[in-house]
Amino acid sequence: MADARALTDRLLNEFLPSEETEPTTLHKAMRYSVMAGGKRLRPILALAAYDYCGGDRSRARQTVYPAMAALEMVHTYSLIHDDLPCMDDDDLRRGRPTCHKQFNEAVATLAGDALHVVAFELLAQTGSVEVVRELARSGGTAGMLGGQMADIEAEGRQVSRSEIENIHRLKTAALIRGSIRIGALLAGADRNLLDRLSVYGEKIGLAFQIIDDILDIEGDQVLLGKQVGSDTRNEKATYPGVVGMEEARRDAARLIDEALSCFEPTEENMLMWLARYIGRRDN
Amino acid sequence: MADARALTDRLLNEFLPSEETEPTTLHKAMRYSVMAGGKRLRPILALAAYDYCGGDRSRARQTVYPAMAALEMVHTYSLIHDDLPCMDDDDLRRGRPTCHKQFNEAVATLAGDALHVVAFELLAQTGSVEVVRELARSGGTAGMLGGQMADIEAEGRQVSRSEIENIHRLKTAALIRGSIRIGALLAGADRNLLDRLSVYGEKIGLAFQIIDDILDIEGDQVLLGKQVGSDTRNEKATYPGVVGMEEARRDAARLIDEALSCFEPTEENMLMWLARYIGRRDN
Repeated sequence: MADARALTDRLLNEFLPSEETEPTTLHKAMRYSVMAGGKRLRPILALAAYDYCGGDRSRARQTVYPAMAALEMVHTYSLIHDDLPCMDDDDLRRGRPTCHKQFNEAVATLAGDALHVVAFELLAQTGSVEVVRELARSGGTAGMLGGQMADIEAEGRQVSRSEIENIHRLKTAALIRGSIRIGALLAGADRNLLDRLSVYGEKIGLAFQIIDDILDIEGDQVLLGKQVGSDTRNEKATYPGVVGMEEARRDAARLIDEALSCFEPTEENMLMWLARYIGRRDN
Repeated sequence: MADARALTDRLLNEFLPSEETEPTTLHKAMRYSVMAGGKRLRPILALAAYDYCGGDRSRARQTVYPAMAALEMVHTYSLIHDDLPCMDDDDLRRGRPTCHKQFNEAVATLAGDALHVVAFELLAQTGSVEVVRELARSGGTAGMLGGQMADIEAEGRQVSRSEIENIHRLKTAALIRGSIRIGALLAGADRNLLDRLSVYGEKIGLAFQIIDDILDIEGDQVLLGKQVGSDTRNEKATYPGVVGMEEARRDAARLIDEALSCFEPTEENMLMWLARYIGRRDN
């Protein structure tokens, strides 16, 4: 995983516009937020899916590499906009001031928009309209943006278990599932394989967000690099808030098991390793 | 032009997500801003370029129609984000409250993001990665977003003629030129034709923004549907502010003439008609 993370960082550095190119402030803000680190989970999942589906690494530069950078850019754009004062109003992200704190709100708004559009430019480089469509759907109103909207609308009120599950499925699982599908599509996966990996992606995506909610309550601020307790402060609907901490833990573990069961019990691969990693992460 | 405008409105209505589909608030906000009217210039230019390049109207539903809707959505997303309090802080747009006034800032931010992503989903429907790349470039940091950033950075200070020209070229001309290129690409235009139409697009795009600046000073608020004098209030760099009103008018007229000279003098077509329309518009 450390290798895949280092590779992702190199690709991001390569595919992000240079700080010396105009508009320099905007390019600086984009790099500031993207290069702040992070788990790089979405690109790593895309690469693991590409490998799992027999993707040719010698062609990675025309296929999964630009897609990996694109996925992290879309994730980062959503964080930048989400951190804005009119949204979650967060000051700290990955141990550093959020983009609008470091620059200003106007620059942060445009930097988010710019990462969004560069992502599509990179996907176009793969030559596959299928993956463009896949990103548009998983990042759209039936995916990530729909989840952010539902998240806002749930603030300050009681939500049901199915509601919070739906929010998490859209807000987080959609793009995680999309990352895996994009890696698989670029490797030329057939429909059956794609369907199986979609189930895997949905499961780990939901588990990932449940654990995120748990860490926001019980996590270590230093390891996390962001303020804990922000969900409570913002009166966010959270999974442990709805079902209780113990059941939240159980559900996350069950989802990881279900994700693993998408593979043969005798199999061992990176996607399985990543599912287990998500299950035990502490940041 | 009235026909093409009515067609665009029908296409937008068809391609925008329904207000009955979740997330309903977000879909309402998207429709509120897109269906508020407007000249629909970018889709109309794309269609005119498609026709000019011999595009097959019987295949328009798989080619230029989704692209037309996509272009208007990208334009509208940029207006929504531009109107936000952290950017131009405008209350009125097309005779109605701006998106963040009608809804709130969080919804307006997400509605802009959502229109942006739906635009790419629609372009993917055409099956052409080339047009995806074209939109990403003209709407990216070397295009529209670069222009918005430069525009902000120029606020409150003296700018040169070449600076204001560069801002307008990026902020407005890039997407107008991109709209024409997308229409032409979808019709299968060859390189020569594409180059010629790119020059035309650049000229009318720059003229369009110069005239916009003029109208912000001398225009009729009722016809425009937005507050006049907002550039002055926001200490925006404007073309007439830099070169004077008389020279601004002369330059706009010259650019229209240059755009027309991309065609044979004996020719008559919709693109030429649109160039003249831009030259004499009052809203």
